[in-house]
Amino acid sequence: MLDRDISRVVIVGSGFGGLQAARMLARSSTLHLTLIDRKNHHTFQPLLYQVATAGLSPGEIAAPIRWIVRGKPNVEVMLGEVRDFDLTRRVVKLHDFETPYDYLIVAAGAGHSYFGHDEWEPLAPGLKTIEDALEIRRRVLLAFELAERRAARGEGQVQLNFVVIGGGPTGVELAGTLAEIANRALATEFHTIDPKHTRIILLEGGPRILPAYAADLSASAQKQLEKLGVEVHTSTMVTGVEPGRVLTGTTRFPSAVTLWAAGVAASPLGKKLAAPLDKAGRVLVNNDLSLPGHPEVFVIGDLASIKDSDGHLVPGVAPAAMQQGACAAHNIERDLKSRPRQDFHYINKGSLATIGRAAAVAEFKKLHISGYPAWLAWLFVHIFFLIGFRNRLIVLIQWAWSYFTYERGVRLITGDAPLPGWSELVREEALPERHAEIVAWAGPRH
Amino acid sequence: MLDRDISRVVIVGSGFGGLQAARMLARSSTLHLTLIDRKNHHTFQPLLYQVATAGLSPGEIAAPIRWIVRGKPNVEVMLGEVRDFDLTRRVVKLHDFETPYDYLIVAAGAGHSYFGHDEWEPLAPGLKTIEDALEIRRRVLLAFELAERRAARGEGQVQLNFVVIGGGPTGVELAGTLAEIANRALATEFHTIDPKHTRIILLEGGPRILPAYAADLSASAQKQLEKLGVEVHTSTMVTGVEPGRVLTGTTRFPSAVTLWAAGVAASPLGKKLAAPLDKAGRVLVNNDLSLPGHPEVFVIGDLASIKDSDGHLVPGVAPAAMQQGACAAHNIERDLKSRPRQDFHYINKGSLATIGRAAAVAEFKKLHISGYPAWLAWLFVHIFFLIGFRNRLIVLIQWAWSYFTYERGVRLITGDAPLPGWSELVREEALPERHAEIVAWAGPRH
Repeated sequence: MLDRDISRVVIVGSGFGGLQAARMLARSSTLHLTLIDRKNHHTFQPLLYQVATAGLSPGEIAAPIRWIVRGKPNVEVMLGEVRDFDLTRRVVKLHDFETPYDYLIVAAGAGHSYFGHDEWEPLAPGLKTIEDALEIRRRVLLAFELAERRAARGEGQVQLNFVVIGGGPTGVELAGTLAEIANRALATEFHTIDPKHTRIILLEGGPRILPAYAADLSASAQKQLEKLGVEVHTSTMVTGVEPGRVLTGTTRFPSAVTLWAAGVAASPLGKKLAAPLDKAGRVLVNNDLSLPGHPEVFVIGDLASIKDSDGHLVPGVAPAAMQQGACAAHNIERDLKSRPRQDFHYINKGSLATIGRAAAVAEFKKLHISGYPAWLAWLFVHIFFLIGFRNRLIVLIQWAWSYFTYERGVRLITGDAPLPGWSELVREEALPERHAEIVAWAGPRH
Repeated sequence: MLDRDISRVVIVGSGFGGLQAARMLARSSTLHLTLIDRKNHHTFQPLLYQVATAGLSPGEIAAPIRWIVRGKPNVEVMLGEVRDFDLTRRVVKLHDFETPYDYLIVAAGAGHSYFGHDEWEPLAPGLKTIEDALEIRRRVLLAFELAERRAARGEGQVQLNFVVIGGGPTGVELAGTLAEIANRALATEFHTIDPKHTRIILLEGGPRILPAYAADLSASAQKQLEKLGVEVHTSTMVTGVEPGRVLTGTTRFPSAVTLWAAGVAASPLGKKLAAPLDKAGRVLVNNDLSLPGHPEVFVIGDLASIKDSDGHLVPGVAPAAMQQGACAAHNIERDLKSRPRQDFHYINKGSLATIGRAAAVAEFKKLHISGYPAWLAWLFVHIFFLIGFRNRLIVLIQWAWSYFTYERGVRLITGDAPLPGWSELVREEALPERHAEIVAWAGPRH
């Protein structure tokens, strides 16, 4: 079907890396691109926590992939799940058919790692997809409703604990925003329980939160979190996640909702590439991002393991993935012009982590910023990079609104069948300090 | 717990009728209100079709009930499902406890009726809740993706039919908007299939669509739909709904996605009130909206059957429900002041039905309007009544955006597990005219 002079490029994954490569390669009329993803939309992952905490709607941080690449006749979008690769025959295998390639870019990203405890996953969901975010939103809001219901039934005050496991950027964002919800957004809307009595507990295994940031910013972030009412426990390894509680060696924390922000595991597709992996399952790529022994295959983004010029591993963040997508695209273009490839060099433009309303930390090389100015920088960077003008404008309005009113408008509990079996799903146990517990909802995910 | 001088009012259901009653009664400091709903949000049902057709996000047409009644200390909100009533003991029974009342307002609304064919429900979902709307959105978008996938697999063009059963306002809205999606929104985004070849088929059992409107407006609505490319079949009774097709006596329509907008059945809670029902299951109420033999119980909204001064049944529309909510609230207030009750009189302020972009019909008594002016009237009425200022502004921006760009931004396919079992869920059958079929996705609902 294709012209002989046309090279077929298959891109697996439409995260930041895959999309960047697609956008650049779409300019070449001698290329035919196939962009394969399991979802029909690109998710702006840095703002997923806003969906999980009812600040934004899914449609505001996700855009249909077809829409993003509209008007590019040489880009084909395919909704599908890649099962395997045949590197010899140069085909990508979906479950019902195969697609051939001349160049392959694998940008399949990463999922959660429960460090060998996959049984914790239904009890402590992580945050990688829109579905994850809606499930977390549902659990958090149901926990408040359940507590109110119990109080109305005459069972007295329920102590609501939310435990966030993992003190990286996602854990910090979730903990900070949950504290805001309990202290402000819901504070006036419950009569029999007091959402302000909610405890938000952040558990970090290492000696400080935000370990990828400079030590002064970690300290500042912890201070900002504590000001919001979050209890931060560092050097605290989680040893067990059970219905209604989290165990950490000597302590057990009652937990109405437990969230997982601790471990990241590269996509299992990495194992299908017959290449050496690092201990997190990432593919050890060549300096030009190609797969060892396969110059026609590139691995980019969270699935790739490569070091920057300082010898540090390139972090799994959006700017790094985008830079790698651009590098892989350039190297394909250079091949086609018979010019030598270039190595990947990571340019660290700085790091931003938000904590809550007007609270954040930012690290731009030697420049370390905290609090309101860091939050403003975070706000503008994130809105600027949001896919699509319409989304940017609407997100800005939503944020302005909730900034001035403290309201979080998207507090919808959706998903069928939450109620008929409600009581069966709520197990109660007498606990030290007589803390009632609410088991995290483990029904179908929505 | 309550003061002896406080009367307890329990309101079941937070649709337009229940909320209106709650808002009015909340002003009385001698009343304690309990508002019970199965959902934590009020849904603005007139715009649900916009969520189903990817024009708006769920959060834009739904608002948390607690937020709506915030700052009203005498209103208690309870997330729960009412199972039964004990009219003698005056208690409302939830599945795990009971709540006593002095006054009860039952505003439990209506669901779908499949006219004794409940087996059609999974094949032809209706549109009453946010979950319904997301399920329809998912099926419609997946149908296009499946057709593209088949074409990519070399199976040739797939004829995509969408069949909407029922020519009332919801069916007309859905058919018109689906035609716009196929003709404009998606037209440039698929390469191997042509969404413009989609057929949208509207089936109505009666002699004309929009039977509740004047005949000239029915004719105008049909003309506007046909201009958008919708095939309208009146006097066409559906005799069977099967995977991939809809049967109507002599014809069978292949159908990728079948939608149900034909029948409404009152909430099964009507049967628990030990009162006479009409054939649609609605409770035949007294002129003051009270339950026969129980002056302390009111039934309002889609669950109540009452005639207006012309002898016509009051229609199941939002303005009627709101007027009934106000009437029930007034009658409770009059009781407390020992004044006589007043009968309910329905004031028909007019009817509006939208068809698509700048297409609608409106009937204000003798004044009948069609096309753009009717659509403008529809637009402003609906935005004006949307709950919450923030939502109104954002909906207006979304609509302005899609009006000028023809884009429908919220085209997200969400819900887990759509892909691994994809092929197993797609059954193919040879059909007359060699139309390939796609079975409506019947997986878990999201």
